[in-house]
Amino acid sequence: MTALKVPSFEEIVHITRKQEVTTYNNNNTIIPFRIAQSQKHSKNTKKRMDAKAESPAPEVSAAVIHPAVAPLSFLLGTWRGQGEGGFPTIHSFSYGEELHFSHSPNKPVIGYSQKTWKLSSGEPMHAESGYWRPKPDGTIEVVIAQSTGLVEVQKGTYSAEENVIQLQSEIVGNASKVKEIRRCFQMVDGKLCYDIQMATNTITLQPHLKAALKKL
Amino acid sequence: MTALKVPSFEEIVHITRKQEVTTYNNNNTIIPFRIAQSQKHSKNTKKRMDAKAESPAPEVSAAVIHPAVAPLSFLLGTWRGQGEGGFPTIHSFSYGEELHFSHSPNKPVIGYSQKTWKLSSGEPMHAESGYWRPKPDGTIEVVIAQSTGLVEVQKGTYSAEENVIQLQSEIVGNASKVKEIRRCFQMVDGKLCYDIQMATNTITLQPHLKAALKKL
Repeated sequence: MTALKVPSFEEIVHITRKQEVTTYNNNNTIIPFRIAQSQKHSKNTKKRMDAKAESPAPEVSAAVIHPAVAPLSFLLGTWRGQGEGGFPTIHSFSYGEELHFSHSPNKPVIGYSQKTWKLSSGEPMHAESGYWRPKPDGTIEVVIAQSTGLVEVQKGTYSAEENVIQLQSEIVGNASKVKEIRRCFQMVDGKLCYDIQMATNTITLQPHLKAALKKL
Repeated sequence: MTALKVPSFEEIVHITRKQEVTTYNNNNTIIPFRIAQSQKHSKNTKKRMDAKAESPAPEVSAAVIHPAVAPLSFLLGTWRGQGEGGFPTIHSFSYGEELHFSHSPNKPVIGYSQKTWKLSSGEPMHAESGYWRPKPDGTIEVVIAQSTGLVEVQKGTYSAEENVIQLQSEIVGNASKVKEIRRCFQMVDGKLCYDIQMATNTITLQPHLKAALKKL
């Protein structure tokens, strides 16, 4: 609810459309497509607002990635691939997965959404969505709502040098059995790989899900 | 995590593409567009899977809305409008809002995402996303992750006759001040109206946000 407050000055880094903008990933290579995305978003926002005749919006200037988000900007975009699941109480299984990280200009947050499907039929399986909130000190909090009706508050750390994010659940809410979830994300050979461990009321922390996803 | 299990037979209501399909809203009028949406989703899923040469998907049959979701099918789609916010500790404010309810065929869940923006500039403000899980007995649970880093588990009831959903927080997680959130949604003159009340560690339950949204 508190996000409805006006963001602080530090949170807002405006640039005009006429300014030339570049930003860099961790290998110091230019990634102008993100700026293009920001500008596209801006235009879409304006178009959407104009469509709403009751409250036309003034010109919205393009904006760079929020400084808090920049160290994890390699995540932004859509990732797709396959995963493997297992746990002592279930048969192991495979799944297709798509994962999307988005960024609204000027906000210190990464939007996150994920869905999986059966490889044999394409039928939808799991889905989850939430927000990643990296801090300049290298810590990060992640909040996730799952389609199963479970919520997670994850706290952890990230390394921009090694492109690793390690998360440990602080809250697993509305779950009858799941007590703890650990999530580790890492770039390996250009793929985003994750490893999820889970503990239930009867089983200690065990590997549960892992996947390797290519950027689209 | 448990959503990765294969859904039960009751959860799956398949139809072939050649079958003629109709479904009804609460006024008993036919709403074929949802079927069209399902078919479109199916085609998109197939296209997506085909694009992934490693795991091409077989033909996916179209599917009707899950029976658990049907009473709230009037929500499905995109809603847009304006809202007003206030609380004893802040200045009152207005905002633009877009809210989206989606449904994956065969799943007893409604996907939910919301974003708000400043009316003056179109600049992004708040965002939240999650899942609504209506039950056949008229109860519902809603899980939400907020861009501010807060999670909610909401429990409540719905009335398909009156198009009302009333929710009361069971968990408000990772919030330093917010202790309780009540959300009430209702159709009024063809608009989706909501009213959100909030309590903090110093202020008892008070009106916080309200909006009236038109379906696009």
